[in-house]
Amino acid sequence: MGTESEGTTVLLNRIDSPADLKTLSVPELETLAEEIRGFLIEKLSKTGGHLAPNLGVVELTLALHYWFDSPKDKFIFDVGHQSYVHKILTGRKNRFDTLRKYKGMCGFVKMSESEHDVWEAGHSSTSLSAAMGMAVARDLKGEDNKIVAIIGDGALTGGMALEAMNHIGHERKNLTVVLNDNEMSIAPNVGALHNYLSRIRTDKHYNKVKEEFEHFLKKIPAIGGTLAKTAERMKDSLKYLVVSGVWFEDLGFKYLGPVDGHNLTQLLDTFKQAENINGPVLIHVVTVKGKGFSPAEADSQSWHGGGPYKIESGQFVKAVGHPMYTEVFANSLIELAERDERIVAVTPAMSSGSGLLKFADRFPDRMIDVGIAEQHAATLCAALALEGMKPVFAVYSTFMQRAYDQIIHDICRQNTNVVFAIDRAGFVGADGETHQGVYDIAFMRSIPNMVLMMPKDENELRHMMKTAIEYNDGPIAVRYPRLNGVGVKMEENPQPIPIGTWEKVRDGEKFAILAAGAPMLELAAQAAELLKPEGIQPLIVNARFLKPLDENMLVRLYEEGYHLLTLEEGAVRGGFGSAVLEFYAERDIYGMKIKPIGIPDYFVEHGSPKEQRQEVGLTPERIVTEMKAMLPRRRQRA
Amino acid sequence: MGTESEGTTVLLNRIDSPADLKTLSVPELETLAEEIRGFLIEKLSKTGGHLAPNLGVVELTLALHYWFDSPKDKFIFDVGHQSYVHKILTGRKNRFDTLRKYKGMCGFVKMSESEHDVWEAGHSSTSLSAAMGMAVARDLKGEDNKIVAIIGDGALTGGMALEAMNHIGHERKNLTVVLNDNEMSIAPNVGALHNYLSRIRTDKHYNKVKEEFEHFLKKIPAIGGTLAKTAERMKDSLKYLVVSGVWFEDLGFKYLGPVDGHNLTQLLDTFKQAENINGPVLIHVVTVKGKGFSPAEADSQSWHGGGPYKIESGQFVKAVGHPMYTEVFANSLIELAERDERIVAVTPAMSSGSGLLKFADRFPDRMIDVGIAEQHAATLCAALALEGMKPVFAVYSTFMQRAYDQIIHDICRQNTNVVFAIDRAGFVGADGETHQGVYDIAFMRSIPNMVLMMPKDENELRHMMKTAIEYNDGPIAVRYPRLNGVGVKMEENPQPIPIGTWEKVRDGEKFAILAAGAPMLELAAQAAELLKPEGIQPLIVNARFLKPLDENMLVRLYEEGYHLLTLEEGAVRGGFGSAVLEFYAERDIYGMKIKPIGIPDYFVEHGSPKEQRQEVGLTPERIVTEMKAMLPRRRQRA
Repeated sequence: MGTESEGTTVLLNRIDSPADLKTLSVPELETLAEEIRGFLIEKLSKTGGHLAPNLGVVELTLALHYWFDSPKDKFIFDVGHQSYVHKILTGRKNRFDTLRKYKGMCGFVKMSESEHDVWEAGHSSTSLSAAMGMAVARDLKGEDNKIVAIIGDGALTGGMALEAMNHIGHERKNLTVVLNDNEMSIAPNVGALHNYLSRIRTDKHYNKVKEEFEHFLKKIPAIGGTLAKTAERMKDSLKYLVVSGVWFEDLGFKYLGPVDGHNLTQLLDTFKQAENINGPVLIHVVTVKGKGFSPAEADSQSWHGGGPYKIESGQFVKAVGHPMYTEVFANSLIELAERDERIVAVTPAMSSGSGLLKFADRFPDRMIDVGIAEQHAATLCAALALEGMKPVFAVYSTFMQRAYDQIIHDICRQNTNVVFAIDRAGFVGADGETHQGVYDIAFMRSIPNMVLMMPKDENELRHMMKTAIEYNDGPIAVRYPRLNGVGVKMEENPQPIPIGTWEKVRDGEKFAILAAGAPMLELAAQAAELLKPEGIQPLIVNARFLKPLDENMLVRLYEEGYHLLTLEEGAVRGGFGSAVLEFYAERDIYGMKIKPIGIPDYFVEHGSPKEQRQEVGLTPERIVTEMKAMLPRRRQRA
Repeated sequence: MGTESEGTTVLLNRIDSPADLKTLSVPELETLAEEIRGFLIEKLSKTGGHLAPNLGVVELTLALHYWFDSPKDKFIFDVGHQSYVHKILTGRKNRFDTLRKYKGMCGFVKMSESEHDVWEAGHSSTSLSAAMGMAVARDLKGEDNKIVAIIGDGALTGGMALEAMNHIGHERKNLTVVLNDNEMSIAPNVGALHNYLSRIRTDKHYNKVKEEFEHFLKKIPAIGGTLAKTAERMKDSLKYLVVSGVWFEDLGFKYLGPVDGHNLTQLLDTFKQAENINGPVLIHVVTVKGKGFSPAEADSQSWHGGGPYKIESGQFVKAVGHPMYTEVFANSLIELAERDERIVAVTPAMSSGSGLLKFADRFPDRMIDVGIAEQHAATLCAALALEGMKPVFAVYSTFMQRAYDQIIHDICRQNTNVVFAIDRAGFVGADGETHQGVYDIAFMRSIPNMVLMMPKDENELRHMMKTAIEYNDGPIAVRYPRLNGVGVKMEENPQPIPIGTWEKVRDGEKFAILAAGAPMLELAAQAAELLKPEGIQPLIVNARFLKPLDENMLVRLYEEGYHLLTLEEGAVRGGFGSAVLEFYAERDIYGMKIKPIGIPDYFVEHGSPKEQRQEVGLTPERIVTEMKAMLPRRRQRA
């Protein structure tokens, strides 16, 4: 497996900036493309990363840097995980050993790394808005640089991309959209627009007719009189009608394509063709995700992004560990759905990441993948619930931000029975700051009618799924981390947990740690162990409901004179700790020592979740320090 | 002015349910339409309300209820402010005197009012997702009702509507989309899709050619051999190409139209035509916003929604009062923009509501109306800022929820110099629960890098605009209420306010009220007056920065032994009060009495802002009660 030139980097060694690239011939670029593929396959086998997306854009990225003049001309990579080739060509090839590692090179576009990185993203569908903003600014400033957005067909279906197209096509700013059509988001792309692109791509018949027709139109002679006017009118209309990519033309774009995205000559010819067109141009480039590495070509979904792998066997290095929360959620949902026909799973293009592929096999009619469309997904859930179904919105914490208004306005305001399965809650590791699932506690708990849970372990997750499915008084959410479970025994028959009840998991005195879910419970337990020699034994509470709180327990803790320490893997601003502070303040209970520990108020970059927790002080050692600071002594000041 | 049948309600008197409607003839329906117009013009002249949108859909709503069978068949009104005719026809005509009043009839679709109200909305573009959810549920349950979404051309450009179309067109569920094309959102509609609809609507030439072509195609004889295949292929392709509304057909919809939305016969014929089509149908209905009331037809933007008016003169009843915050913001922005070329105003279809029409006149190149597209607007702002411009995102608090992810991911994470002008912060009055601007403090303050201000009066708003424009360290927001200013003198030269500084506006002892902006400062002052006779004089602080807090002042208040009461017109969960609680807790400052007062955790319905504040206890009396409860006495319990 791998490519022919694997291991050779003769040309690549000479490339340290886009300027070096411009000295090469097209055949040399083709060789370089193969070298880059070999480089990527080799490097990523050790670090992991977004292999398939980047293998798909090798020639495209080469052509972009060959034709355009970065950083004067601006490349905006949608999502940004397909920017590895761009990073290689802009002086960062020596940093690939640190890819996605703590303090290493970011897996996305990163302005602090290079002047060639002009726009950052980790969420999809932002590139067209960014391009438009840069075009407006350029024109207001009277500058003349080019702006190129590179967006996948998956990302194109995200609502904001279509909002941007509507605006761009109206204003007719000069900018280029490269539609990188590989028929995938992470999952195979879905939707009517995808179907449309497929028709353009595959319908040679359509293109044939188009050619015939243009030929025919050219032959219509110029004639005089009324007949002539009719003929001309007809000719104009027909010309309009037989243009390829009418859908984009109707939105005000000039459509060029489809172009083979692995053919450098075709790509460069098309860029040249686009150069003199006034107004926005959309270049439809067809690429193969995973191109040049057969395991990735064969299963680009698994190879979208992942860990290290063996090049020879094309197998990922097996992660060892207990089942991940994701998997436990998915299996639990299948079990529940066997006995409850109301259950429908809804995912915004995350059927694999959310663990739902097995669910989709088992219940194809009750699995809805809407594509990258979180807003639509949320409101769809609200309507399903109003009609008596039990929609389970499986979504990553970070992407759920896209549906915030729909959660307020459609789901919670109408108090619909929607279940949220919030995956990747807390630190997400290597994806870093764009993907951290750290705001959901703060933003979900301030919405009326919401119930928000987090389990202490994978067994409790199953109970919580049962709880959520049986709850019929409005929206209910369970959040869980991107981690392996802790390896507890799975009980046979999950039972619903009474809403708003916490659980004491370890007895203690004087101090109580209110820990919000995994892995905070583990940190608390470790802190307790550290404190044993000093004779301090904190009570540990599994604060499994982040909303509503366990009011009885909170009152009891107060009455029994505990100092509290709240612990959450979420933004400390407005988070669970604040909820506890609010609880006592609203009840005129003053004078308790309550210390909230969570994620401080800045964006935490990539690394392992453990490194991220370490960085922000979500550690047993910190808990110990904070607890000791609560012991009687002179008053502390800011 | 008004209509011919103004005042007569002979037919209308007989209509208490859709069933009554079905006994009428089409000519009678036409008469009824005029009666309904007269009724609306008369009733709304006293209560105010969304006159123009409803006058535009009189015949359309009649046709819907005449042809379909509500509530079995489900009507989903996008936004829902155009549901007045629907309310009239479903037994609510006697409630119009209470329209949008406290405890009266809601100005939007409201499930608790009628079984015919099956989906609520106040924000736009949700109807297609709702229709799809209902269609999926219907099919899973094996039912056979019809589902009709009624969506304006303005709402269609909202990203989630396009996400839904992409999904619907792919799944090909049976449902009907009525596209109510009146060329407006609240403002004249903008965007490429709007241009496309205009072409369909007006291009008779195009329709002519289409007819000629269909005629021509029919005449192609069936012939044998290779030639026949080519001819057939060509015929198929051409047929595909000459269909009207190709853009929608490409997305998997059957397109019917354009239809005159004031012609009942045409509407009913089209519904009949749609009946036997399998899969989603889009009916393009052309209506005139404000139809039948000439002032509203002439200026449907002003008449979109408003207060009471005189029917005879077609003039709104002049509101008296100091300039609204909206107006002060807009004038201030013009002044600033005169001297700062970086300033660009960005609005999502709210140029009028945000007060920016004058700005648009003065700086047409620096005014960007993106249509109903909050997500795109926010990310566009981030890109403008990265390119050195100073974008001012003028947006209502409630609609800003749509851009939450973009605010986190694009604006704050990239720490861009975007200015937020958050209008309608706090209670919005008659629009009610869908529009309350009460979550922004909670959701904005939990995002890193954000600065959030709220002025105590209209003069301070001008200082804050100056502050925001001069601030170059990242995003900065100023929120202000949908209220008139308090009538203070406007200073000549607004000066920037040091970030994170509060202001003592009234001296006092023992108690300090930290009040977040207008009108909370007024409540605090009123409470102080009430307390005078009892010898209690609270210190009043203008807590004009909700983030960052004035740390020095907070420490001083602690050192000086004050009890604190925080006051905000925002959700108390995660709000400003929580921020104050967090501040002390994080600094190990325990033992203070701090009482947060804000909006409790439920959705507050329509009424006047004053009634809404009264309902939730944002009153001087409540402040007095809470303050007295803080006086030494036996401990309070939950």
